[in-house]
Amino acid sequence: MNDTIVALATAPGVGAIAVVRLSGENCIALAAELFAGKDLRTQASHSVHFGNLMDGDYLVDEVLATVFKNPHSFTKEDSVELSCHGSPYIVNRIIQLLVRSGARLAEPGEFTQRAYLNGRFDLAQAEAVADLIASENEAAHATALNQMRGGISNEIKNLREKLVHFASMIELELDFSEEDVEFASREELKALIEKIDVVLVQLIDSFQLGNVIKNGVPVVIVGKPNAGKSTLLNALLEEEKAIVSDIAGTTRDIIEDELNINGVKFRFIDTAGLRETKDQIEAIGVERAEQKMQEASLIMYLFDLSTESSEVIHQTEQMLQDKGKPYILVGNKLDKIEKEEVALSENEHYVSISAKSKDGVDRLKKLIWTKSQMDNFQPGNVVVTNARHYQSLVNTQNSLHDVLKGIDNKITNDFMAQDIRHALHFLGEITGEITTDDLLANIFSKFCIGK
Amino acid sequence: MNDTIVALATAPGVGAIAVVRLSGENCIALAAELFAGKDLRTQASHSVHFGNLMDGDYLVDEVLATVFKNPHSFTKEDSVELSCHGSPYIVNRIIQLLVRSGARLAEPGEFTQRAYLNGRFDLAQAEAVADLIASENEAAHATALNQMRGGISNEIKNLREKLVHFASMIELELDFSEEDVEFASREELKALIEKIDVVLVQLIDSFQLGNVIKNGVPVVIVGKPNAGKSTLLNALLEEEKAIVSDIAGTTRDIIEDELNINGVKFRFIDTAGLRETKDQIEAIGVERAEQKMQEASLIMYLFDLSTESSEVIHQTEQMLQDKGKPYILVGNKLDKIEKEEVALSENEHYVSISAKSKDGVDRLKKLIWTKSQMDNFQPGNVVVTNARHYQSLVNTQNSLHDVLKGIDNKITNDFMAQDIRHALHFLGEITGEITTDDLLANIFSKFCIGK
Repeated sequence: MNDTIVALATAPGVGAIAVVRLSGENCIALAAELFAGKDLRTQASHSVHFGNLMDGDYLVDEVLATVFKNPHSFTKEDSVELSCHGSPYIVNRIIQLLVRSGARLAEPGEFTQRAYLNGRFDLAQAEAVADLIASENEAAHATALNQMRGGISNEIKNLREKLVHFASMIELELDFSEEDVEFASREELKALIEKIDVVLVQLIDSFQLGNVIKNGVPVVIVGKPNAGKSTLLNALLEEEKAIVSDIAGTTRDIIEDELNINGVKFRFIDTAGLRETKDQIEAIGVERAEQKMQEASLIMYLFDLSTESSEVIHQTEQMLQDKGKPYILVGNKLDKIEKEEVALSENEHYVSISAKSKDGVDRLKKLIWTKSQMDNFQPGNVVVTNARHYQSLVNTQNSLHDVLKGIDNKITNDFMAQDIRHALHFLGEITGEITTDDLLANIFSKFCIGK
Repeated sequence: MNDTIVALATAPGVGAIAVVRLSGENCIALAAELFAGKDLRTQASHSVHFGNLMDGDYLVDEVLATVFKNPHSFTKEDSVELSCHGSPYIVNRIIQLLVRSGARLAEPGEFTQRAYLNGRFDLAQAEAVADLIASENEAAHATALNQMRGGISNEIKNLREKLVHFASMIELELDFSEEDVEFASREELKALIEKIDVVLVQLIDSFQLGNVIKNGVPVVIVGKPNAGKSTLLNALLEEEKAIVSDIAGTTRDIIEDELNINGVKFRFIDTAGLRETKDQIEAIGVERAEQKMQEASLIMYLFDLSTESSEVIHQTEQMLQDKGKPYILVGNKLDKIEKEEVALSENEHYVSISAKSKDGVDRLKKLIWTKSQMDNFQPGNVVVTNARHYQSLVNTQNSLHDVLKGIDNKITNDFMAQDIRHALHFLGEITGEITTDDLLANIFSKFCIGK
């Protein structure tokens, strides 16, 4: 399991440089064979060496080779990084050369998998590496980094320790079962489980937040097409766009309806236009708009202050209230009317703006933020962002509820011990104390190659 | 001119890691301020250090920092490479942080420009760095690497030395002009210039080859649409595609009509179909096909062996001969007829194949290769691939021809010295002994940022 694996570690495509990464017991010797320069085998860990990478007599590239010695590398194996000129052709040639010389193309996530298997971190931390690479905003970045550095793992560890303590008392009673002793009162045991449950509930509840941090807060916009949606989105986007175009060379695909407020991604979903068409199509359109409103965390109703009748506004607000979801009414085109004409006064549900002159856009941003309940997010908090962890936590909770029921129903200790073992099993899945090959394959296959 | 510059050095996009590069007098101190780990200022050159990159109290990423000390770096300045997780968000944050801390976003090619200005290599070698990164096949790769390692520069240096020798004799005669001495016979001088001219002609002639190595050999395909062009292109492409898809993670855009034969790029330009339309469009189509044939290095006429009349074949061959260009007749669909039925026998202009069964495709490849005169290409040869160098060589040659004319016309030494200085000036432009700010700006602006 520690044969030499190789992959491009940097993003594919043309760059000034590219880094090809090797890991495995013999990888330094393998690289040394092809490297005309200092003998890489005798170099210290964390040292960088300039030399020629040779395919026989053919010079493939001038490279920098960095040597990492077991266990002081990402994988905790011997590793080599070859920094070459950033041409896909050269990268291909180097990887082909290394494969011909005995290395193997790495599977997706295989470097991280080795790091996990060699004890660098637990499974939840390994999963956070992929989240960190995929992070696109401060909230996703901070939670992934927190998880990678053991945030969730520590919580799970604490829960497990408490459960093990509980289990040990039950097991002790089992050992002395003939004597019918009770080392802890059932009330005390119940209190302990309930204490654990409080933490579980917190973690489980944090998944809703974690999910929007990772995937974005879905905000549905309803309103007529001429209400000024795209002007508004541009006004909201402007700042973000400026930041991105500032840093040339690091292109990011800007999808028009995604934007970043206070470091959190908001996905603006447009239902406008769907209602313009007639008959059957119209019906489908309304149905889709309905579905999108169901899925959204927040509904934003945008209307034209200068043309929309207050009757329609009130009807719409009534419709939104009936959904039982956070909503905002946004009266646009403030620039087109006299301020005195605004029928509504601003409140926790309503803001009047001019997307064109940007008047009120900041107030709208604040309202979007508070209405999405993002105030709950603190960068240092432990937040469950991973659906797998969420599922395991729910399973743990179910097992603990079985324990509580068992106490109430005075079931025997061996049944109770079994429920506890289930709970410990589910918690162990999160950090990888309990794994199967399928589970690992499933997790790491979602990584990119080279990580 | 050695303020701290910063840029992403690896390709943009998501990868396992990304490398942000800093260069300049104070860059190590600047990085050290943000790096929680060992003090980077006291570390040896070419050493790598693990630590946390901090934005105040906020952890931006766990990074590896590599220190390079002047002059042992690419730019010959102090340099730092920060290897971070390959998320565009993290890269943006790191670059923004560094810019806030006093670094400046690098201009395109600014690292290479500094390497040039600090004497790491001459201008022709600096230009080769960009060619190397852009290289997509073995021929382009080998010539760029050869140029980067001084191939062309050495030739130019030799030419300059010979010219300086010539110039020195002329200048010597100028010093003694009142005494009317001749330190070299005019015949000897002529012979020297002619010797230089031989090398110049070789270099100038190599540009045709260099140009196709860099930009691909243009091959025009003429023939009716049903002759099997796309099956043929697929048959020719097959091997190449297999190689590319072998190396996952290093995506390359395959443009269907580009393919690699023996490490050289061939661009297959289709004129078929242009003739299908009628009237005016037809006329434009024929005109375009005509133009493409003019621009091509090789014309390939593809026809269906089972349907094309020998009269059309002979007419077409006549037309091709009249163009005075290399051409190949390709009879396709050999599988559809009995071999005895093939009217033509294979020769240096003709090959019969089955694109479907791939029978004869290898013979066709060989013919394309020899007909394109690619046998002239040897990886070790010095080949001019750069249009700027080509122009300077032509200018040098013109100046030397003026010298020769001057000798024949017995012009005075001071005029001859002036022509020689012109020639030296043009040669100096290639390697950068003679430059202007405009020239440098023009060259390096074509580089990518980070190089």
